[in-house]
Amino acid sequence: MLPFEKSEYLARTEKTRQAMAKQGIDTLVAVDPANMNYLTGYDGWSFYTPQAVVVGQGLAEPICCTRAMDAAGAKLTTFLKADSIIGFPDHYVQSTERHPFDYLAEKMRERGLDRGTIGLEMDAYYFSGRGADAIRAALPDARFSDCDHLVNWVRIVKSEAELAYIREAAVLVTAAMRAGVEGIRTGRRQCDVVAEIYAAQIKGTPEFGGDYTAICPLLPTGAGTSTPHLTWSDEPFREGEATILELAGSRRGYHCPMARTVHLGQPPKRLIDTAAVVIDGLHAALAAARPGATTEAVEAAWRQVTSKHGIRKESRIGYSFGLAYPPDWGEHTASLRPGDRTELRPNMTLHCIPGIWEEGWGFEVSAAFVVTPSGGTPLYDFPEQLAIKA
Amino acid sequence: MLPFEKSEYLARTEKTRQAMAKQGIDTLVAVDPANMNYLTGYDGWSFYTPQAVVVGQGLAEPICCTRAMDAAGAKLTTFLKADSIIGFPDHYVQSTERHPFDYLAEKMRERGLDRGTIGLEMDAYYFSGRGADAIRAALPDARFSDCDHLVNWVRIVKSEAELAYIREAAVLVTAAMRAGVEGIRTGRRQCDVVAEIYAAQIKGTPEFGGDYTAICPLLPTGAGTSTPHLTWSDEPFREGEATILELAGSRRGYHCPMARTVHLGQPPKRLIDTAAVVIDGLHAALAAARPGATTEAVEAAWRQVTSKHGIRKESRIGYSFGLAYPPDWGEHTASLRPGDRTELRPNMTLHCIPGIWEEGWGFEVSAAFVVTPSGGTPLYDFPEQLAIKA
Repeated sequence: MLPFEKSEYLARTEKTRQAMAKQGIDTLVAVDPANMNYLTGYDGWSFYTPQAVVVGQGLAEPICCTRAMDAAGAKLTTFLKADSIIGFPDHYVQSTERHPFDYLAEKMRERGLDRGTIGLEMDAYYFSGRGADAIRAALPDARFSDCDHLVNWVRIVKSEAELAYIREAAVLVTAAMRAGVEGIRTGRRQCDVVAEIYAAQIKGTPEFGGDYTAICPLLPTGAGTSTPHLTWSDEPFREGEATILELAGSRRGYHCPMARTVHLGQPPKRLIDTAAVVIDGLHAALAAARPGATTEAVEAAWRQVTSKHGIRKESRIGYSFGLAYPPDWGEHTASLRPGDRTELRPNMTLHCIPGIWEEGWGFEVSAAFVVTPSGGTPLYDFPEQLAIKA
Repeated sequence: MLPFEKSEYLARTEKTRQAMAKQGIDTLVAVDPANMNYLTGYDGWSFYTPQAVVVGQGLAEPICCTRAMDAAGAKLTTFLKADSIIGFPDHYVQSTERHPFDYLAEKMRERGLDRGTIGLEMDAYYFSGRGADAIRAALPDARFSDCDHLVNWVRIVKSEAELAYIREAAVLVTAAMRAGVEGIRTGRRQCDVVAEIYAAQIKGTPEFGGDYTAICPLLPTGAGTSTPHLTWSDEPFREGEATILELAGSRRGYHCPMARTVHLGQPPKRLIDTAAVVIDGLHAALAAARPGATTEAVEAAWRQVTSKHGIRKESRIGYSFGLAYPPDWGEHTASLRPGDRTELRPNMTLHCIPGIWEEGWGFEVSAAFVVTPSGGTPLYDFPEQLAIKA
């Protein structure tokens, strides 16, 4: 069942402990579901109630705390011993009187984890203001420190075993994108094409299937292409309109994202011209993404090519990705943007997606790539050009 | 584009203001994406960055604050005037130095919304500890109050227009469950069946299509049926094993959930017996769900039937549902459990799902129902019995 050897999990815990020691953290409470999975293997759609993995400098292995009914899932999906798995009783669920983190704090106290410096993932999804207040109030003998993204930064360089899953996810997203680009035709309903995209993402190949992705298929169309995060409707695709597809494949939670743009009928010149320039800029970014380069240098390479054609873009052009749960497949570590000085290292995986959103129209193309000695090597080979269809 | 008349949105704001007034709240900051949608129509998979809708006692209409690139989406999907839509610049995104709620606070101050009592949805998804600390620190002249679920409670009784969408979602989940129950056969890969489930959910009918659901298809199988929230793999279904399907359909964000259990080959007696008792208990709960009854009385009706057969269940047997975004289609208001004394009213919609999870096995069946004068009326008609297949 476990997607990795137990030794890989233990190495992850050890790296996390080292990063904690550098920041003076004795005990880390990870609530990001991807971090929980990374450290223990825990996998389940249970992040809609509070849950956490605790890593202690003196603990032999992490502790996983979930709702009681999900503790059985932790037994099935993690390498942890039974006494490292804690289930909180159901009367803590969605109660106005008590919070699951009250229970977690009690269990931490019983194990002597209520002192020293405790790191909290303060800006993580599913770590609410009330959860933060509850755990801080319940552990009065601890100092608290914001360790948001500490585990994410440990995750940024992928192992060969992780890369193998990401390469399988690349196969999945290629199939899903093919279903989308081939499926879009004037008069077909958007939902019918998205049904085919989902089926391709999940069915996969005869060798392996796909998992749910951290973001659903995004499919802005027509005037909707002026903004990136709209989803489909049951309206038909229309002649003379563009559609942006932003999709991913996921294999054991490891993602590979891709964006492409389709136009039905003859596209306006500005769209054709923009597409050509943005694709050139994307190639420049990939070439610049060598080990030792900074993330801002990758963005600068893109901007150098595109700005002379009048393209202005305020938002970042990419981010690190990998293991992910809803609502985001981004890793929340390095971004390709000015001021971000992360040094690229081999086996980092990033998604370069220089989306252009203007008044009433837009264009997206992207490359998910792995950092190799020769630059950013795309994880898939799928036509980048604006797809023009009837 | 808007799924409801503008008048329906304005009535929702007015009801929200009344509830705020009862709790002494001058300004409410809603971050739950379902609450944001309910109040303004805003729809997009953008909740992976902080965003909010602000309702003020003195404001003509709500304010919607998103990332700048999503503000164009707010213009397309809401009824709001342009100056009620605020986009925060991209350097606030995933920054360790500044938080989008610093920006929101600044805009609130400019509009005089920085005083009096401000309600925060303290335990909402996507309202992080850091977000809570940021907004509290940035608005020193305000008092803060936890208004978690205030809008959710306004949402609990559905309008006829909302019920129409929920009934369409019931058609969608019926199609998805049929695909699942018919698709599961010994030797077929789990991912192949889930691909068919997704396709049915989204493709819908010739009259309408489906949207993404707030929880992905849940599909514990074999020993996995001892816990509710596991998802599929690419392993085959096996003779002699049960599979639990928990699915939903979604129509314009309005959900309808359903759970059923399939067994391949002759089931063990304990599973057959448990299924029969749980279904009887479910019917007793539905009969008890009349206007004026409390939610705990509905649970008690279930328990009265099932406990004499030795069935023990610690966790709640159901919850209110409706408009939802990932990661949960539950509304976080009424639960069917002891101590929950919500009085049922006509047009409330609840999901009664008395799941049984034992060591190594489990059983689920459910009914999504609307409260009517004659009791809980199921929203779909799908065989409840344990499905026995080859």
